[in-house]
Amino acid sequence: MSRTVLYMSMSLDGFVAGPNEGPDNGLGDGGHRLHEWFFAGADHKDHKDIGKLAGVDGDVWNEAMSTGAVVCGRGTAEPAGFWGGDHHDGVPIFILNRNETGAGTAQWPLVTFVSDVKVAMTEAKRAAGGKNVLVHGAGTAQLALAAGVLDEIEIHLVPVLLGQGRRLFDNLAVEHIELERTRVLDGAGATHMHYRVRR
Amino acid sequence: MSRTVLYMSMSLDGFVAGPNEGPDNGLGDGGHRLHEWFFAGADHKDHKDIGKLAGVDGDVWNEAMSTGAVVCGRGTAEPAGFWGGDHHDGVPIFILNRNETGAGTAQWPLVTFVSDVKVAMTEAKRAAGGKNVLVHGAGTAQLALAAGVLDEIEIHLVPVLLGQGRRLFDNLAVEHIELERTRVLDGAGATHMHYRVRR
Repeated sequence: MSRTVLYMSMSLDGFVAGPNEGPDNGLGDGGHRLHEWFFAGADHKDHKDIGKLAGVDGDVWNEAMSTGAVVCGRGTAEPAGFWGGDHHDGVPIFILNRNETGAGTAQWPLVTFVSDVKVAMTEAKRAAGGKNVLVHGAGTAQLALAAGVLDEIEIHLVPVLLGQGRRLFDNLAVEHIELERTRVLDGAGATHMHYRVRR
Repeated sequence: MSRTVLYMSMSLDGFVAGPNEGPDNGLGDGGHRLHEWFFAGADHKDHKDIGKLAGVDGDVWNEAMSTGAVVCGRGTAEPAGFWGGDHHDGVPIFILNRNETGAGTAQWPLVTFVSDVKVAMTEAKRAAGGKNVLVHGAGTAQLALAAGVLDEIEIHLVPVLLGQGRRLFDNLAVEHIELERTRVLDGAGATHMHYRVRR
């Protein structure tokens, strides 16, 4: 059965981007540090040039790139230039965009704008052809957790304290969300922690 | 050589206590969840009753309890009743207390109040008899990191999202602090991550 899996690189102090994020500064000041574990061997700063990552880091990367659909927020997709309309392997991309649906769909045939996180996850699972759904972005993660539609979490825990920036887990309710740790993989540049969300 | 090692249980979303912390609510609402990994087999809610923890969790616990001195903040020590004056094995306890030094030393002979984090770490290393120094508490960790006097970090990463509470890593400067991940141990109730602070 298809599952929605959040893949995010996070510093030990919980940040997924540095301070001063913006359209031209998608990872915030110094936030590129969090992506060094997979960009280390790449010539270009485009994730589609990656694929020769060694060992555990490569296994985890390839797993993420084997998903059958993508769900993320506009704040993640836009600074990345919508990945030229193709995140990986031509899979459908669902972009969570609460205020403005539809815009841009003509330009990127694989892209669908969805205003509700539950709808986004349901449609993405249906479109994923039995594969998992790659979920990306802090805002999307928070909405999905709150709505109970995130199935799994894969954190690439990077050995650095960023000090300031944007936190992955923020604005959540006071109720605990129990997780089951299902895998720990010790990569060269990050420790990959996999959790199932208990519901 | 003696090293200062922070030992803290932390939720995946970075909290070391729930909300509404206070003298009578030292771990905040629901914060006890973070200590279940070592209290699971204990009869009493006093850490000195622990010691029969199985496997990896027990190894890590025993390591922490093999330290030769303790440094923590008053906000950690006071709700714990100063551990009856003896944290473990009669080792010296240095309590960071910026505003009020000296008070309480008569009552607890092992306890010394220190107003400066560098002095606290230096004195604790000297007093530890060649063993490591156990550092505890979010405020103390933040001060020690900022002052460059924290040598290592052991995080007991608990598979839960608390949602709200007190964060371990907060109020840090924007400069990155690079870490070297030196050990990952997969315990029954927590994943134990050990880091060396690069300086």
